[in-house]
Parts: sequence; C-alpha cells; structure tokens
Amino acid sequence: MRDRFAPRPGESRLTEVLGADATLAFIGRVRSAWRLDDCPKNLRQARKRGGGNARLELAAPFRAGLEGLSPGDALVLLYWMDRAPRDLIRQHPRHRDAPAGTFALRSPARPNPVALAVVRCVSLDSDAGVVGIDAIDAVDGTPLLDIKPWLPTVDLPPEELPER
Amino acid sequence: MRDRFAPRPGESRLTEVLGADATLAFIGRVRSAWRLDDCPKNLRQARKRGGGNARLELAAPFRAGLEGLSPGDALVLLYWMDRAPRDLIRQHPRHRDAPAGTFALRSPARPNPVALAVVRCVSLDSDAGVVGIDAIDAVDGTPLLDIKPWLPTVDLPPEELPER
Repeated sequence: MRDRFAPRPGESRLTEVLGADATLAFIGRVRSAWRLDDCPKNLRQARKRGGGNARLELAAPFRAGLEGLSPGDALVLLYWMDRAPRDLIRQHPRHRDAPAGTFALRSPARPNPVALAVVRCVSLDSDAGVVGIDAIDAVDGTPLLDIKPWLPTVDLPPEELPER
Repeated sequence: MRDRFAPRPGESRLTEVLGADATLAFIGRVRSAWRLDDCPKNLRQARKRGGGNARLELAAPFRAGLEGLSPGDALVLLYWMDRAPRDLIRQHPRHRDAPAGTFALRSPARPNPVALAVVRCVSLDSDAGVVGIDAIDAVDGTPLLDIKPWLPTVDLPPEELPER
C-alpha cells in the first residue's frame, strides 16, 4: 500500500510525533474475499460487490465478549489498517480535485489507522468466535480491535446545532 | 474508575492477552465540563445536560489535518478511555438485569477502550487546533485519537440482510 501513498503535490507528512502513547490488543481478524489489489475502497462498494463472505474471527480469550449479540444486530466495527502509512496529515486522494486534511477524509492513511464500519450481523457462532457480517471493506486478515452495538440514540448526528 | 469496575457476580476477566500488538498516538485532548464523578454516561445524557462547552484541542503537528472541515459537519470521534480497565470480557452494568458480553455493551471497559461519538462541529479554529462540538460524554482531558467525517452512505446500518 505504500506505493499508493507515495508523496503527491500539496501533501504534508508528520515527523517524529507518532510515538507510543497507548497500546492496542488485536482481538481477532477480519475475514473477507479481498486482497490488497482488489479491496473495495468503502463499505458501499463492498456491498455492491456482494459482501465477499465477510466475517470476524475472534481469538479464544475474547469470545465470551460476544454473549448478548444476535443475528440482525447492527454493529460498529473498529479495525486496524496495518498497511497504511501514519504520517500523511494532508493528502490528495485520486478521487478528489485537491489535497485535504486527513481528518476531513476517510482514507486509511491517518495518525491512528483505526477504520470504522457499521455493518449488520448475519450469523453468529459464539463458541467458535465467528461473526458473519453483511460486508466489509478490509483485506482478508485485517486485525480486529473492537465490536460495539450500533445505537440510533447515540450514533446518529444531532439534527440541529445547539445554542452556544 | 477502577472502583466502579470492581468484580460483580457473573463477570469474567481476561488474563495475559492484552499485549501490545500496535501503538496509538494521542493527537490531542477532549475538553469538557465533566469530571470523573459527574461525567454523562452517554452522548444522549451529555446533550440533555447542555453540551458542557465541549471541544477538541489538537496538538500542533496534527492541526493541518483539519483542512476541509467546516462548522455544521457531522464528525465521528475516536477517543481513549484511559481510566477504564481492559480485562472485563463479561460485565454487569448497573442499568442491566444480568451480565453480558463486553461486545454487546457500550461500556468504556473493553479490551481496547476506544470510545466512539458522532457529533456536530459547531465552531472551528484550525490555526489554534480547536474544534467546538455540540456535546461529548468524556471527562475533560480525555486523549483524542481520530476525527473522521460522518458519511450517511457508509455510516448507517444496511436496511436489509443480504442473501447468504
């Protein structure tokens, strides 16, 4: 993936500020039909291409954490884009006219390459630690960080700006 | 916060699997009116209590990443719940009748304590690295990990289950 992120005009890189302020544990892996050279760029594309038999495989110690989930649930997934460079703070995606700040983009290249997907659980085998999902935009083997229930009461933007 | 997470009947803890598979960089801090003993438990509660002059303060190297954001934008925030224990894999929140798996809950106590909030940007000073937001359910000083644009095309659950 680094070739795809070779410097382009107008891009900016961070230097020496990407230290180890905290550590992550990989709880499992994303399984998909996608390799690096054919991976959908976002969830909408992944869904159009048919899902790719997407699923999550949790390592044994973490499987007890699935208790209470059911097929049909909407889930938030966090996963680690381990092939993405972390030092691009302004970048120029191919689909855009001009460079933009990383925090205005959903590029996997960001200081903390934690990707987010809102998906539907379609099957669940808690003992085996396997969670079938409707689709995912991640390469097979991508490290999984978290599963959360998606909740409309907190996971939709507020409709109106508050008085300040 | 550890006292709030003292063991309760039916809870389970992870042991020796919370290693350092990857590292995070803190890009800034969440600023809020909340202390540990009066922090809203979720975004809905935070909004009811008036927002608390919530804002994000980015460290200088990361401020260039704000280019392209504007007041009114819906944002996804990821932040690090640095006071939460990471070893609770089954837990019994006070508001529930029985214990449940951590991945079926939005508790800050989880293997990777990365919290997620979908908020509205209400003001922006890119040079100072300050992003005003409508509300947040995090204690003042909570480490910030990421800002992403919220996109309805990918951040809403799919309405229907796909054929498998």
